[in-house]
Amino acid sequence: MGSIITLTTDFGTEDAYVAAMKGVILGVNPLAGVVDICHTVEPQDIARAAFVISTACEYFPQGTIHMLVVDPGVGGQRRAIILKTPRAFFVAPDNGVLSYIIEALKKESPSPQESPSGLEFEGLPPGLQAVSITNPLFWHHPVSSTFHGRDIFAPVAAHLSLGVPMEEFGDNIDTVLTLPVPHPRTGEGGALIGKVIHIDRFGNLITDIKKEDLPSDQLSLNIVGHVIEGLSTSYSDGDKLLALLGSGGYLEIALRNGSAATFLGARVGDELTITGG
Amino acid sequence: MGSIITLTTDFGTEDAYVAAMKGVILGVNPLAGVVDICHTVEPQDIARAAFVISTACEYFPQGTIHMLVVDPGVGGQRRAIILKTPRAFFVAPDNGVLSYIIEALKKESPSPQESPSGLEFEGLPPGLQAVSITNPLFWHHPVSSTFHGRDIFAPVAAHLSLGVPMEEFGDNIDTVLTLPVPHPRTGEGGALIGKVIHIDRFGNLITDIKKEDLPSDQLSLNIVGHVIEGLSTSYSDGDKLLALLGSGGYLEIALRNGSAATFLGARVGDELTITGG
Amino acid sequence: MGSIITLTTDFGTEDAYVAAMKGVILGVNPLAGVVDICHTVEPQDIARAAFVISTACEYFPQGTIHMLVVDPGVGGQRRAIILKTPRAFFVAPDNGVLSYIIEALKKESPSPQESPSGLEFEGLPPGLQAVSITNPLFWHHPVSSTFHGRDIFAPVAAHLSLGVPMEEFGDNIDTVLTLPVPHPRTGEGGALIGKVIHIDRFGNLITDIKKEDLPSDQLSLNIVGHVIEGLSTSYSDGDKLLALLGSGGYLEIALRNGSAATFLGARVGDELTITGG
Repeated sequence: MGSIITLTTDFGTEDAYVAAMKGVILGVNPLAGVVDICHTVEPQDIARAAFVISTACEYFPQGTIHMLVVDPGVGGQRRAIILKTPRAFFVAPDNGVLSYIIEALKKESPSPQESPSGLEFEGLPPGLQAVSITNPLFWHHPVSSTFHGRDIFAPVAAHLSLGVPMEEFGDNIDTVLTLPVPHPRTGEGGALIGKVIHIDRFGNLITDIKKEDLPSDQLSLNIVGHVIEGLSTSYSDGDKLLALLGSGGYLEIALRNGSAATFLGARVGDELTITGG
Repeated sequence: MGSIITLTTDFGTEDAYVAAMKGVILGVNPLAGVVDICHTVEPQDIARAAFVISTACEYFPQGTIHMLVVDPGVGGQRRAIILKTPRAFFVAPDNGVLSYIIEALKKESPSPQESPSGLEFEGLPPGLQAVSITNPLFWHHPVSSTFHGRDIFAPVAAHLSLGVPMEEFGDNIDTVLTLPVPHPRTGEGGALIGKVIHIDRFGNLITDIKKEDLPSDQLSLNIVGHVIEGLSTSYSDGDKLLALLGSGGYLEIALRNGSAATFLGARVGDELTITGG
Repeated sequence: MGSIITLTTDFGTEDAYVAAMKGVILGVNPLAGVVDICHTVEPQDIARAAFVISTACEYFPQGTIHMLVVDPGVGGQRRAIILKTPRAFFVAPDNGVLSYIIEALKKESPSPQESPSGLEFEGLPPGLQAVSITNPLFWHHPVSSTFHGRDIFAPVAAHLSLGVPMEEFGDNIDTVLTLPVPHPRTGEGGALIGKVIHIDRFGNLITDIKKEDLPSDQLSLNIVGHVIEGLSTSYSDGDKLLALLGSGGYLEIALRNGSAATFLGARVGDELTITGG
C-alpha cells in the first residue's frame, strides 16, 4: 500500500490550515509522503475541486490516498467518507467532490445529454467501495466542529496509509452524493454543443468535450463568434487561435504564447458548437 | 528527536529564497522532512508570523523544529536564537516572532488588560531553554549579511535535526524579546472588549477572545454595529452572521458560505463587545 | 547520486499540472525528494526561469536534478535535453532556460559589453555534458503533445534519480541554445552602466552588476534620478535607499522596511550608472 497522501483544499496558502493537517498526518505516519495538489480552489467551490483532482489522480502510484477538503458543510449533517477505487483511496466529505472520479469509473459511457442540476445520491459503480467515517478511534481529539480536515480527514488518511483496513473507519455505504458532471449535447442539425468547464493559468479554455465525442478531425468549431477549423496537435502549431486535445483528454481552445481566454473574453460556462468538416 | 523542519517566512513564492533554504537543509540532513507553514506573511510583519506559527505548531510531532524567518533586522544587532519548549524547537531571529509561543507557555494566565506596546525583554517561563546562535561552525559559508535564513537559520535547524545538542550552537540566554500579545479587556459595565487579530482566507474574523474569557454561552456580541446572539457550533448553523469558537480556540465571527469580513467591512484591529446574556 | 528533484515552471498553483508531474516522478522513484523552486514564473518567461534557477541551484547537494518546464515550444521542433554540470543535472527544453547556468561555468569571465540579442547555439564549456532526450523507453505513455513536463521531463528526471546513465536517454549533443545573459557595460568616462534584472518580493532591485564589476567600495550610484553613495552591508544600515551586494552576489538597491521598487518607481530593465568614489 502506497504511503503518498495528496491534499486538495480551498484553504489558500495565507493561513496555517494546510500545515496543521500535515502536522497531524506526520504525527500518525512519519513516513507519509504528502503532496499538495491545489489549495487555491475558491472557497466552497466543490465542482472545481472535483475537476482538479480528476486531472491529477491518475498520475499517482497505485494505492495513493487523495484527501479532499472543500467542505462548506463541516460540522453539519454531511457524511465524511472513504472511497476506494481500483487505483486509489479518496478521503473526503460526501458532498459531490468525488463526482468526476465516480463518473469516470462508470462502465457505460453516457450518451451526450443535458446535465441534470443539483446533487443526487448515486449508487456506486461496480468495483468501488465506500465507508462512512464514524469511528472516533482514528480522529485527532478534541475534534473541532469547524476543521474536520485537521481533526478527522488528516488522521484518517494517515492511518489508512499505515495499512488500517478501510472497514475499521466505519460502515460500508451503498451510495455517495454526486454533482452533475458536464457533458456536451447534440443540438440542431446534429451539431455538438459543449461548454468551457475550466480556464487554466495560460488562459487555455478546457471544454467538456472529449476525443470520443468529436465527429472527426475535420471539425469546424465556433466559440463566442470565432471560428476554428481543424484540430492542431500542439500550442506551437500557429500564431492564431487553435483547438487541440489537451493533456487531460479534453478539447482545449488555446492561443500560442497568449491567453485564449483574454483574447476571446471567454468565461467558464461559455458554449462552443462543433460541426463535422 | 524528530527530523521535521517547518518553515514560516515573508519570502513569498515568486523568488527562489525558500528553495535555497531547503537546499541548504537537505545538504546537511538529506532525511529532513521540510514542511512549509506559510511564506506569504507580509514583508516584515513579525506579529503576523508570530500568530501563524502559534496556530500550527501544536499539531506537529514532538521534537519538530520550527524555523521562522521574518527578519527585518538581518545583518544588524538582533540576535539569532534557538528556543526549546517541552514540545518543539524554534529557530528564529530574536525579534518577537516567538511571542505567542512563549505567552502560551506561561504558567499564570494573564487577566484581561490593555496590552503594553512595543518590544520588551522577557524572562523565559519555567521549562524553556534558549541559546544565542553564535557558533559559525554550523553555518553555511560565506555568510551573506542579507540572508541569514539560508546561511545561518537553515543549516542550524538542519544540524539540530541531526541531534547536535542545543548548547553547541551558542551560549544560554535568560531573556528573549517579545511583542505584546493581544488580550481582551474589561470595559464599562463589565463588558468584554476584544478585537479582530486575523482574517483568514474565508473571511472569518478571528478575535483575541478565548473560551475561558467568555462570560457564558448566552452571550450578546456587538461588532461594527451588528449584533450576534449566542454561540454557534459550526459554519453551517445558519445563513446569517454567527459567532463560534474556531479551530484555533479563538472566538470567530463567520458567515455561512460567505465572507464575514466583506459583509461587515471589518478589518484587523476592529473591536467587538460581548455581554453575558 | 542524489535523489532530490527540483521543479521550476510557469504552471502556477491554481491547476494540478505540478501535482501530475510529482505523481509521475513518485511512480518511477518513490524515494525521490521533490522540492519546488518556483511555479509562478510568468507564462513563457524563459529568461526569468533561467535567472531564478541560477539563484538556487548552488545551494542544493551534489547530484541534485533540476527540472525546468517553461516550454512554449512544447510539441514542436525544440529539443528536450539533459545537461550535466560538475555539480548537478538539469532536465529542460533546449530553449535558453539554462543560459545563466552555462554562463557561470564558462572559464573566461566575459568583459563588460553590450549583450547580443536573441537565441544562439553555444558550444558547451569544458566539463559539461549534454544529451538530447529521444529514447521513449523512459517516457510516460501516451505522451501528450502539450504536456512534456508530465510525460517526458518528469519520468526522465525520475529515472535519472534512480541512476540510469545519462547516455541511455539519447545521443550526446555539442551545443545548446542560450539567451544573452545581461552584463554591465562601460559608458562615457569609464562609468559602469548596469540594469535591473529582477525585482524580488521585498521590492529589492537586483541588478546585473557583480562584486568583481565594481570599481571600488567608494562608489557613487545613480538610478532613475536618485544618487546612492557607498555600499552598505545590510538592509538595516539606514532608513534611506541603499546599495549592497545581495545574497545572490548581485548589486541590489534596497530600502529599509520598504520597497525600493515602489519608492523609485523602478522596473526591470531600468539602467543604473556607477562611478568610483
